[in-house]
Amino acid sequence: MATASQGGKPSPERIFSTLIAYQQSEALKAAINLDIFTKIGEGAEEAGALAKAIGASERGTRILADYMTVQGFLTKEGTHYKLTPESAIFLDKRSPAYMGAMAGFLGAPHHRENLANLTEIVRKGSTIAGEGSNLAPHDEFWVEFARSMGGLATSSAMFIAGLIGSAEGKPVKVLDIAAGHGMFGLSIARMNPNAQIVALDWPNVLAVAEENAKKFGVSERWSKKAGSAFEAEYGDGYDYILLTNILHHFDHGGCVKLVKRVHAALKPGGKAVTLEFVPNPDRVSPPVPAAFSLVMLANTDSGDAYTFKELEKIFSEAGFSKTDAHPIPEMPQTVLVSEK
Amino acid sequence: MATASQGGKPSPERIFSTLIAYQQSEALKAAINLDIFTKIGEGAEEAGALAKAIGASERGTRILADYMTVQGFLTKEGTHYKLTPESAIFLDKRSPAYMGAMAGFLGAPHHRENLANLTEIVRKGSTIAGEGSNLAPHDEFWVEFARSMGGLATSSAMFIAGLIGSAEGKPVKVLDIAAGHGMFGLSIARMNPNAQIVALDWPNVLAVAEENAKKFGVSERWSKKAGSAFEAEYGDGYDYILLTNILHHFDHGGCVKLVKRVHAALKPGGKAVTLEFVPNPDRVSPPVPAAFSLVMLANTDSGDAYTFKELEKIFSEAGFSKTDAHPIPEMPQTVLVSEK
Repeated sequence: MATASQGGKPSPERIFSTLIAYQQSEALKAAINLDIFTKIGEGAEEAGALAKAIGASERGTRILADYMTVQGFLTKEGTHYKLTPESAIFLDKRSPAYMGAMAGFLGAPHHRENLANLTEIVRKGSTIAGEGSNLAPHDEFWVEFARSMGGLATSSAMFIAGLIGSAEGKPVKVLDIAAGHGMFGLSIARMNPNAQIVALDWPNVLAVAEENAKKFGVSERWSKKAGSAFEAEYGDGYDYILLTNILHHFDHGGCVKLVKRVHAALKPGGKAVTLEFVPNPDRVSPPVPAAFSLVMLANTDSGDAYTFKELEKIFSEAGFSKTDAHPIPEMPQTVLVSEK
Repeated sequence: MATASQGGKPSPERIFSTLIAYQQSEALKAAINLDIFTKIGEGAEEAGALAKAIGASERGTRILADYMTVQGFLTKEGTHYKLTPESAIFLDKRSPAYMGAMAGFLGAPHHRENLANLTEIVRKGSTIAGEGSNLAPHDEFWVEFARSMGGLATSSAMFIAGLIGSAEGKPVKVLDIAAGHGMFGLSIARMNPNAQIVALDWPNVLAVAEENAKKFGVSERWSKKAGSAFEAEYGDGYDYILLTNILHHFDHGGCVKLVKRVHAALKPGGKAVTLEFVPNPDRVSPPVPAAFSLVMLANTDSGDAYTFKELEKIFSEAGFSKTDAHPIPEMPQTVLVSEK
């Protein structure tokens, strides 16, 4: 629960600031679009120089940079703006850990429009978007996802690769379902030179993952399979099948149906590795996984953020013998490993 | 400046949460629109009963109520949702301090659309909205403002009424420029039975203020004057002229022009009383006044949140002898009193 207002006396301040919180999203998105962090990092530290560097008005640049300072993404010393450690690492394009691209997906008009209809969505109980659960074949939305979200996935992907013992270098065959940017399978391939990865997604999305496979120099151990997770022929004999950020799009029945296909494609003793936002049984903690449920309400027909018990039941009904949970340190998601 | 991420180690978590902060605005707006706080206050504490009370799906209601709990506007005990002190006072319609109406103005599509174009606005240096600074005559937008924001203005209005000694009950003549909901002038009228108020605004907005004057039983000492603050005949001999939340819409020259008209309409020794978001000279603190500058960038041609020094200069150039600042306790705004 949030802390009380100043001095413990209730005030409407937090209601006010929550109603205008969208300004923070828009401002950070604009700052990333205009690339002000990279230009400040390169030395354009004053409003005039920065405006010139980003091709914008000085007035607009000054106000945006001040706002970014208020939000803690810059500091201001006299008339000089400076990067914070956070913005230097994640918002300066010259940094290998640059994550500004995620503004593209998180701030996509599609997301905004769905959320803007939330009153109606709550009445109905599911998305009111024509495209339903965004799972139409070849949906360009997932190309945006693949291009935007690879960076944020890096540490989770490394965690998963480590968790399944990739460093030992045993020959393994891995199916990466709804691969998106491909980072989860690719991290295993990078850590284990004897891993073979098969990535499944729509063909337009796989093109992004394929670029990443080339970039990481693992193309010869990475192959693609285009199609729907519910319909494509998976092949069989997999040591691991990855289900990263996919189950939350479906209801219990849909999840069981999908996980049964996963079960069938694993070799005996093989494991399904699931990445999810997993709230506690109270569904209101921890904050990020619990809040994710709203995103699924707005964007899907019947998806949700499932508790561990609910996920365990899905895997059990699909034939898995046991499921263990591994929270990712300092990240809001949990990895589940389910044994065939 | 914001605090460092967990354990002092930079993480992209705050970037992520800022990019999706708009979800908080949409969720609170939907919860207010659906009136879940009043219904919970009336006893519909479980998802099923609450859904029935608000005429919505149980799934959507459960997810929204959980999200409101995550955001600290509700608590959850088992399957029962309860109001927090803050939501009981400000978001339950049965409370005299209800402020849910402000979602109408703060979440207005007009505001959202302007902010959604922030990249372009920063390039240009001013709003790209056709209607410019929202100061077109009879703009319906200001009716929405007047209907939404009166509640939030209450404590500032009481502060101003007290500051100018209304409790002493001396006969005073007050002009309330851009009166909106009229709360500023009306609070003086309520505290001082010998105060005469003249409210100036567009005729459609004045209709809202007039309702409030009736509600407070001060109609016989409250009169209206329809027109533009830049063109209407003010009359003269005023003891006080109120300039609440208006100067930030204009550039320095526009402010001086307006304040000169105010100077002329005051009697000798009369005072202009200004309510503004006043940032420190660094323009990045305190957070709320400093951040307000972005709202003016997005919504006006050349408005801004002015520092005390800048405001003092405006009043001095318009002929005022001195200006004092009075920060409002526990509120983000400052009252300036300027003497003729």
